[in-house]
Amino acid sequence: MTLKHQLESDFQQQSNWSLRRQMGIPNNRRLWVCACMDERLPVDEALGIRGDHGDAHVFRNAGGIITDDAIRSAMLTCNFFGTEEIVIINHTECGMMSAHTDTLLKAFQEKGVDTDNVQVDPATPELKLEQGSFGKWIRMFDNKSVDDICAEQVEYVRNHPLIPDHVTVSGWIWEVETGHLRPPHQRLSEKVNSGKEMGAK
Amino acid sequence: MTLKHQLESDFQQQSNWSLRRQMGIPNNRRLWVCACMDERLPVDEALGIRGDHGDAHVFRNAGGIITDDAIRSAMLTCNFFGTEEIVIINHTECGMMSAHTDTLLKAFQEKGVDTDNVQVDPATPELKLEQGSFGKWIRMFDNKSVDDICAEQVEYVRNHPLIPDHVTVSGWIWEVETGHLRPPHQRLSEKVNSGKEMGAK
Amino acid sequence: MTLKHQLESDFQQQSNWSLRRQMGIPNNRRLWVCACMDERLPVDEALGIRGDHGDAHVFRNAGGIITDDAIRSAMLTCNFFGTEEIVIINHTECGMMSAHTDTLLKAFQEKGVDTDNVQVDPATPELKLEQGSFGKWIRMFDNKSVDDICAEQVEYVRNHPLIPDHVTVSGWIWEVETGHLRPPHQRLSEKVNSGKEMGAK
Amino acid sequence: MTLKHQLESDFQQQSNWSLRRQMGIPNNRRLWVCACMDERLPVDEALGIRGDHGDAHVFRNAGGIITDDAIRSAMLTCNFFGTEEIVIINHTECGMMSAHTDTLLKAFQEKGVDTDNVQVDPATPELKLEQGSFGKWIRMFDNKSVDDICAEQVEYVRNHPLIPDHVTVSGWIWEVETGHLRPPHQRLSEKVNSGKEMGAK
Amino acid sequence: MTLKHQLESDFQQQSNWSLRRQMGIPNNRRLWVCACMDERLPVDEALGIRGDHGDAHVFRNAGGIITDDAIRSAMLTCNFFGTEEIVIINHTECGMMSAHTDTLLKAFQEKGVDTDNVQVDPATPELKLEQGSFGKWIRMFDNKSVDDICAEQVEYVRNHPLIPDHVTVSGWIWEVETGHLRPPHQRLSEKVNSGKEMGAK
Amino acid sequence: MTLKHQLESDFQQQSNWSLRRQMGIPNNRRLWVCACMDERLPVDEALGIRGDHGDAHVFRNAGGIITDDAIRSAMLTCNFFGTEEIVIINHTECGMMSAHTDTLLKAFQEKGVDTDNVQVDPATPELKLEQGSFGKWIRMFDNKSVDDICAEQVEYVRNHPLIPDHVTVSGWIWEVETGHLRPPHQRLSEKVNSGKEMGAK
Amino acid sequence: MTLKHQLESDFQQQSNWSLRRQMGIPNNRRLWVCACMDERLPVDEALGIRGDHGDAHVFRNAGGIITDDAIRSAMLTCNFFGTEEIVIINHTECGMMSAHTDTLLKAFQEKGVDTDNVQVDPATPELKLEQGSFGKWIRMFDNKSVDDICAEQVEYVRNHPLIPDHVTVSGWIWEVETGHLRPPHQRLSEKVNSGKEMGAK
Amino acid sequence: MTLKHQLESDFQQQSNWSLRRQMGIPNNRRLWVCACMDERLPVDEALGIRGDHGDAHVFRNAGGIITDDAIRSAMLTCNFFGTEEIVIINHTECGMMSAHTDTLLKAFQEKGVDTDNVQVDPATPELKLEQGSFGKWIRMFDNKSVDDICAEQVEYVRNHPLIPDHVTVSGWIWEVETGHLRPPHQRLSEKVNSGKEMGAK
Repeated sequence: MTLKHQLESDFQQQSNWSLRRQMGIPNNRRLWVCACMDERLPVDEALGIRGDHGDAHVFRNAGGIITDDAIRSAMLTCNFFGTEEIVIINHTECGMMSAHTDTLLKAFQEKGVDTDNVQVDPATPELKLEQGSFGKWIRMFDNKSVDDICAEQVEYVRNHPLIPDHVTVSGWIWEVETGHLRPPHQRLSEKVNSGKEMGAK
Repeated sequence: MTLKHQLESDFQQQSNWSLRRQMGIPNNRRLWVCACMDERLPVDEALGIRGDHGDAHVFRNAGGIITDDAIRSAMLTCNFFGTEEIVIINHTECGMMSAHTDTLLKAFQEKGVDTDNVQVDPATPELKLEQGSFGKWIRMFDNKSVDDICAEQVEYVRNHPLIPDHVTVSGWIWEVETGHLRPPHQRLSEKVNSGKEMGAK
Repeated sequence: MTLKHQLESDFQQQSNWSLRRQMGIPNNRRLWVCACMDERLPVDEALGIRGDHGDAHVFRNAGGIITDDAIRSAMLTCNFFGTEEIVIINHTECGMMSAHTDTLLKAFQEKGVDTDNVQVDPATPELKLEQGSFGKWIRMFDNKSVDDICAEQVEYVRNHPLIPDHVTVSGWIWEVETGHLRPPHQRLSEKVNSGKEMGAK
Repeated sequence: MTLKHQLESDFQQQSNWSLRRQMGIPNNRRLWVCACMDERLPVDEALGIRGDHGDAHVFRNAGGIITDDAIRSAMLTCNFFGTEEIVIINHTECGMMSAHTDTLLKAFQEKGVDTDNVQVDPATPELKLEQGSFGKWIRMFDNKSVDDICAEQVEYVRNHPLIPDHVTVSGWIWEVETGHLRPPHQRLSEKVNSGKEMGAK
Repeated sequence: MTLKHQLESDFQQQSNWSLRRQMGIPNNRRLWVCACMDERLPVDEALGIRGDHGDAHVFRNAGGIITDDAIRSAMLTCNFFGTEEIVIINHTECGMMSAHTDTLLKAFQEKGVDTDNVQVDPATPELKLEQGSFGKWIRMFDNKSVDDICAEQVEYVRNHPLIPDHVTVSGWIWEVETGHLRPPHQRLSEKVNSGKEMGAK
Repeated sequence: MTLKHQLESDFQQQSNWSLRRQMGIPNNRRLWVCACMDERLPVDEALGIRGDHGDAHVFRNAGGIITDDAIRSAMLTCNFFGTEEIVIINHTECGMMSAHTDTLLKAFQEKGVDTDNVQVDPATPELKLEQGSFGKWIRMFDNKSVDDICAEQVEYVRNHPLIPDHVTVSGWIWEVETGHLRPPHQRLSEKVNSGKEMGAK
Repeated sequence: MTLKHQLESDFQQQSNWSLRRQMGIPNNRRLWVCACMDERLPVDEALGIRGDHGDAHVFRNAGGIITDDAIRSAMLTCNFFGTEEIVIINHTECGMMSAHTDTLLKAFQEKGVDTDNVQVDPATPELKLEQGSFGKWIRMFDNKSVDDICAEQVEYVRNHPLIPDHVTVSGWIWEVETGHLRPPHQRLSEKVNSGKEMGAK
Repeated sequence: MTLKHQLESDFQQQSNWSLRRQMGIPNNRRLWVCACMDERLPVDEALGIRGDHGDAHVFRNAGGIITDDAIRSAMLTCNFFGTEEIVIINHTECGMMSAHTDTLLKAFQEKGVDTDNVQVDPATPELKLEQGSFGKWIRMFDNKSVDDICAEQVEYVRNHPLIPDHVTVSGWIWEVETGHLRPPHQRLSEKVNSGKEMGAK
């Protein structure tokens, strides 16, 4: 092979990378991730992927929850960018559990915020919040466990009309205290020390 | 020092990590990042931080734009979790530039979606979109350059009443074709080859 | 310095290593460890020591408990080999919790073992077990938690007449499911998700 | 394969590790090791195993000898945890050779210990030592060579009624002065320099 | 194999390396490169070769352009040293673009250089420059783009009577601002952000 | 320091690299190298520099000799790009020694080249070669040693009116058979084995 | 395989290493090397062997010459230890060339040494030097080249009655100035630059 | 510093290395080593030096004994090459112990060698062996221990008139079975297990 041929092939590869969306090339794993924005949630390590180097579209917000923005982002990647799987990651000791909605509302009001008249989307005034729903819109977990929250998000995505039915969806909990991922409601720390009868042989 | 003393100190450190939000410990750099969810945008590498290992709260959505969800997430971290700086990253060849809003709307309608009656936030029906604004809510860049988009997002954050005034805000463009970060409207590829008179001596 | 001088010094060092006990040289950290023999308990990693390369005398048995053999071993190192600190490590999901004493006894009896007439120490018939105490001698944890077991072992050592009073003693739990060490009764997995009011600021 | 499938498989693997005893999973090599607690005996290196990372149950006491505790530990792993091989390691220059039993007894008596009335197992008063046998119970090697001691321990295990007959048993000497393992009574340092007639050709 | 045989073979290999030209051995890739002398043009890295360790004859001058010296060097390697491919590399932000010919001429004249009477080749007075052509001989790019310059050099080589027709020739631009190689007139930075209709699916 | 400040500083650094010539920034070592294009001459290794990563302008041609192109390139870097030192490298077993000028001329004529009418610079017809000087223009070394050739090139540069007087100039021979650099006429292989009287003491 | 089986096999291997001569095991390459004792002659590197780790018997003396001691050593390894190849290494710039025999003799005499009455072998007075041959016994190279010296040593070994005929013998020169090995009389530094006619094509 | 200056300094360094003996430069440690030629004796590793890279003159023969060749080599380095220390290394399980002198003599005679008429030094017939001393000249260790042999060699060197008095001399035993160096008569393997009374405290 001439060097010319090799250099042409190298350039084509770099061109494909740069122009993926124009050329209709999906991400490597045809994957969309929704995760909390927490600084202790290492998304790539948790999933064993290289999300930042071509593997996935990684959506992250406070809580790792399915908001209208999550739907907007997921609907774009699933309908137009070739994505076929969705993984949602919540985590223990989330900031969304560090206070109750009422505490937050009171804190904002003490700062002088009129929580009934906030334009929540600065670019889209057409997106309106009903009176009295500012607190609900914040999506604190309040009395729900993170496992329940996670299961709920999976359902929101599975049932949303803008997400195609064939997309695979799963939800997971990252344990900041152990550095491990678990399915909702399957805490290993609850299962250990629970053996009642001889298993070994 | 006894080993006992060392082990107690080690445990305290791990405890602080696990219980950061309960204990009011901010992320390492007191930083909130807003970035596009694109698979070619390596956030940590681009910023020289370890966002996934304690350094920052990293918000990501389609486009890396300031939506209501971005405001919600930024307002929580800036008001309650000790964050004092915001960095926004958009990137060249974003999927948000791969089609015009009208094209998208037409595509959805062909799939049978009634774009005037979509509950965009599956958990918060109180968040409502006015008739005819579904297309605008998608936030395609349409005829705006990514540099203009980036500058706009910086302004949205600077001016939003829920974001404290003392927070430092800046916006950056990641060039997928070069692997470099640039300030908006400062493309090096436009500056090279533009020398008119002898600079060297 | 001549090479002769260097080689003599090297030989002295190796000689000291080989003849530590004859020469009254203690282990590097003057430390005695009592740990369970479980294959998932990495003693050196858990303690941050090099127990196998000079740092500590490491006693291990089924459960990591204070038996007569543990007392014998600890008494020798503390009274004659210069040891001044004791660290005890138990662990979650210990085999000692995988069955109840009664189940074990029944299993032995079904194998035809006369549990009332076993010479438990093959070399020391003078060490005798009273009738009916074979089950107790096995030391299954039965209904006690591993945290309680650990705290008990610390007390056994602190109070034993053959262990000098000035020796520092502490007890720890290795969590096989997380790969972390904790003090007894301080499970981080119980503390996460328990925040009730806003700590962050 | 979907990422969901991969993550489920990863979780199953971690679950199996954490719950080995409940689920009846043996250690990797179905091995029980009895070794001295000496700080110069690197068990994993000597045997070429990763005892601390799943390979073996590692029992260690003063001397690496078969006490009642060793029998208790070995009987549990061989009868209930799937173990099928036993390896015993003693070592040269053991602390058990650094003094004679009589010297030790005298030392204890000078410290005011009533060696005829010590409760040797703090948790099991039913384990009793006959009058005058405290010295014997310490198990100093006295006039026996470490090679003889090792061979004896192998016999104790082979013949004990609580250890199943099909278990493979072997004994080894770790030479602290050479960093090598040898079978009992096979010192290479005695064989070198002993050639009497021409072997080479 | 005897060691003698191995050493003879090793010596033969070193001899072949040292005497390549005498023995008619070509460079590894039968390649001649013409590149600019700029300090930001990493020839080996750009081409993925080891030019300095046997792979290619690497000609470099100010601009990476086809001068009489380039023809001389290429004609020797193609006609007598076995070379069969030519690669030309120019680069963005070349010093040849940092000033206009007129500026340079004026600068030389201000230094007192009589630009009409310079012996340009100190060893070959028979190589003469016509009156008034000193400026042209410097080969500044003036108003031409680097892409045009590159394409021109390819043509100069393809058409020169001293370069055999079967030699493969190609030209490339190294972008100092991106660290990538591109074919002339194929700037990726111009192609990104130019998608007009939905490509993804 | 805010991250914004760091990112601005990073961008300035990359900008300086890309726009060195426009901004009048010299190469790192203010160095111009003239070397043979031979594939066995590792310029960076020989000089201990990183010529390809900012350290030097590296001119290379057949022979590593001072032609009109070398003068053109050196005059640009020394007068306009801040260069203050020149290093010339020739090497043993150069292709310029593999044949005599007459042999080459005859070879060209046999290929049908009219060596009296070749336009040697394809872009600059104003650069003319006198009748009968084609052979001289090729610059074969003929009967001169590489050491003499090297010394000559140093003189050509030192004395040329377009090269400023303050520039430091030196010449070196790379020995392909040893992998070492030597000053002209200082072959170590000639000095070894030449000791006549006892030097050691 | 049981661990017992593995440990037995490991011990056998170490035993074979320690008792090679008793057991009639030859060195790995059945090789005897004769080399100069010079500090610049890296025997293993020069030959590509691991002489110090089992590969060869390495004899070294002043000059790397065949003395009576060399014959003694070679005869033992070839007749009794299984050796079948001999490699001799001399080197350039040997100390044996740094002075003439007469200079040395004079130097010794000035130190008061009676060179006619020295017992050269302190343990074997039966080995006697004839009057006046002390200078010759020193074996300085005097006017011989190192290449001639090397060739001579090969002959001495080939023809000596105590060395079996089937042994392969070769001689080499290490060039301290180049770091390369060459056969006698084959200096690459003499061959470079000697091309007379075009070899390349 | 100019690059010219650096290159001159580099060349001077290489020149000093190549011409050490002519220029009267000693080896780095002013050291002469006498060691056995055995393939299991790693001289550099045993001494912690880089004998092959400038540190020492390394003499090696069968046995590592002081022969006339050893005296010749040591006298040259100590009197003329600046050496000031001598280290002798013998080793366990030496081939010189693998047979008795009588066995060797018989073996040679069976091969037809007339052991009374061998010219032992092929180049110096003036070096003569008395009738009947061939066996003694071989220097088998016969009934002497390697420790005694080593001590003897030290004495031979210390007392020889050709070795200057100020030279430091020491002797060492390499244990092939342990990979350690010991002084003569100081076997650690004899000292371990020999403790009689309590040393530890």
